[in-house]
Amino acid sequence: MKKESMGMQQVIRTKGGVGEESHARNSIPQAGYYPLCFTTLSSMSMPLLEQAVLDLCCTTLPESVAIADLGCSSGPNTFCAVSEIMTIIYKRCCQLGRSPPTFWVFLNDLPGNDFNSVFKSLPAFHERMRVKNGEEFGPCHVAAVPASFYHKLVPPRTLQFVHSACSLQWLSQVPPELLNKQISNKGKIYLSKSSSPPLIDAYAAQFQRDFSLFLRLRVEEIVPGGRMVLTFKARRTPDPVPAESYLSRDQLAQALQELVSEGLIAEEKLDSYNVPYYEPYTEDIVTEIEKEGSFGIKGLEIMALPWDSLNGGQNYDRPTSAQKLAKAIRAVHEPMLASHFGAEVMNPLFKRPMEIIAADTREVEHVAVLVSTTRKT
Amino acid sequence: MKKESMGMQQVIRTKGGVGEESHARNSIPQAGYYPLCFTTLSSMSMPLLEQAVLDLCCTTLPESVAIADLGCSSGPNTFCAVSEIMTIIYKRCCQLGRSPPTFWVFLNDLPGNDFNSVFKSLPAFHERMRVKNGEEFGPCHVAAVPASFYHKLVPPRTLQFVHSACSLQWLSQVPPELLNKQISNKGKIYLSKSSSPPLIDAYAAQFQRDFSLFLRLRVEEIVPGGRMVLTFKARRTPDPVPAESYLSRDQLAQALQELVSEGLIAEEKLDSYNVPYYEPYTEDIVTEIEKEGSFGIKGLEIMALPWDSLNGGQNYDRPTSAQKLAKAIRAVHEPMLASHFGAEVMNPLFKRPMEIIAADTREVEHVAVLVSTTRKT
Repeated sequence: MKKESMGMQQVIRTKGGVGEESHARNSIPQAGYYPLCFTTLSSMSMPLLEQAVLDLCCTTLPESVAIADLGCSSGPNTFCAVSEIMTIIYKRCCQLGRSPPTFWVFLNDLPGNDFNSVFKSLPAFHERMRVKNGEEFGPCHVAAVPASFYHKLVPPRTLQFVHSACSLQWLSQVPPELLNKQISNKGKIYLSKSSSPPLIDAYAAQFQRDFSLFLRLRVEEIVPGGRMVLTFKARRTPDPVPAESYLSRDQLAQALQELVSEGLIAEEKLDSYNVPYYEPYTEDIVTEIEKEGSFGIKGLEIMALPWDSLNGGQNYDRPTSAQKLAKAIRAVHEPMLASHFGAEVMNPLFKRPMEIIAADTREVEHVAVLVSTTRKT
Repeated sequence: MKKESMGMQQVIRTKGGVGEESHARNSIPQAGYYPLCFTTLSSMSMPLLEQAVLDLCCTTLPESVAIADLGCSSGPNTFCAVSEIMTIIYKRCCQLGRSPPTFWVFLNDLPGNDFNSVFKSLPAFHERMRVKNGEEFGPCHVAAVPASFYHKLVPPRTLQFVHSACSLQWLSQVPPELLNKQISNKGKIYLSKSSSPPLIDAYAAQFQRDFSLFLRLRVEEIVPGGRMVLTFKARRTPDPVPAESYLSRDQLAQALQELVSEGLIAEEKLDSYNVPYYEPYTEDIVTEIEKEGSFGIKGLEIMALPWDSLNGGQNYDRPTSAQKLAKAIRAVHEPMLASHFGAEVMNPLFKRPMEIIAADTREVEHVAVLVSTTRKT
């Protein structure tokens, strides 16, 4: 990874703590995933995740099972996936009359993630696991790996199971053609309907490089026969700029343009800001996995959620739904935006997306792709 | 470990952040160790540490070398020992014309340690290592293990080198005889000249149980032939209560007694507070290592530092030295004291030790023991 991208790497994180604007408060408890993936995604993806874990249990489980969650974030969702994975393994072992393993959990996120909050919640996590599974559950040991998942994370052949939810759409860096100003993206912060083909290609190529690197790194770390289940924010269409992919970033760009027109931020500052993000088409994901060659695809699912799925099934008016969505956007984007534009413009900036979303009549779904793989032996 | 001790386990930590009273500000940069061990301890202990690392390099080093620092704390000293260990290995490999290994660093401390600060300092740490050793150094991957070192920390046979500086005098809990009020320690918070033999025995027995458990846990985690270098605050005399061991805790107890007499804290509150701490006699350490049997002792050193060694060689008047010592005491003890007595009495409390230390004419040395061991094959 080039050095110029490290600055951005440091700030791709959701907002820590438990304050009004933190990720912890703006993702729904027990949602299992990233705020823009919402509650229902967790239950929708569960069958494929469960099957992957049960498949692993069919093999000779070692005495120690190591599980990594990549892009664990901080908040009530941090332990959701690993809790589920460990519970399924534990119950299956009990059913089969086998000794349940010792669990080693590796929680990974960028160094800027609020790991202090995660560690503070460890006693409550262990208590929940005991309540859920009984006193015999465990032992379960937790370590943190504060690094980009585009780097090595654990020693070779350490992991039996890797999980990552709605993190792999984050790139290691903004495409170099944008960083070196070979391509411009004036007034925007991501792909949009007006994006030029070179811009679209630059984003697609960055995703390919990153995901290919991700796979090569994980091949070393996962034991043969190990499982990897990944959820991406993604596209179900080959169209590189469907509204489902770019809308919320377009709305954020609109809010930034308003700040430019009011003189609160400089135009060049906006022009030099781009999000290191890409929602791949399902086929892009499959192609990279097949090209790398060490993982077999065991299942793939596309999940679509209503635009207002943060409501958790409640029927709210558009302004209320827009407010919830705008808060989730703030929780995800604020650290990166504050690092580039300055913390002082965050409040004026984040007053706007709610109104912009409320005034927009489009109701595009949020789409995610879940892919379940096995590390070939 | 008994459940009643977990509350205390959560709060044995030095004060995080970089504020006026934090451990980071009250330990001397590059000191290498815990604030009460001071700058010079690092350089004094270096020959034994260096020899242990060089001995390791005489064996067939694997491609990956995993190093754990137990009780790493947060602040400028966190990376000191691991930096030294990696640099010695790297330079030795270069001298011998061997490929330097990939490094895996496991930083361990209790979950309440300020790991966010540690992770924020990672880019600066990597940069320092590059400046010190050249661009070819590394790669070096860092993980955190937020747990008591009286628990399992890493999977079996993971570690080549274990280091722990001035942490093992912290017990897993206050001796049970004090917790269940079988023995009283009225007006005191640790052993003192007036301690009853049962109280002294209770502390000694708790240390034996804890250190014996520590050794049994590490035997599993360290590969045969691996090295372990431990520094303890300790005694160089069989007398269980030399002033060098109890004085600063006695001075802190005196400050607490003053708050009791002023009605700021309840007498029972002081009577139920004891420090989970024990400075073992050199022989106690050797006995436990020999009793466990899996580690061979390669070297043992006793280090004594002047009472005002926090001055870093400067000659200050007694009040100035007392102030520095009082600040170091606050950095170490405040989290535990605040958890028991309430944060609101911390400022009134910590006004006093400086005056008490300044008025005391005793100048007892700080003593530490360094023991270097090999995991037998």
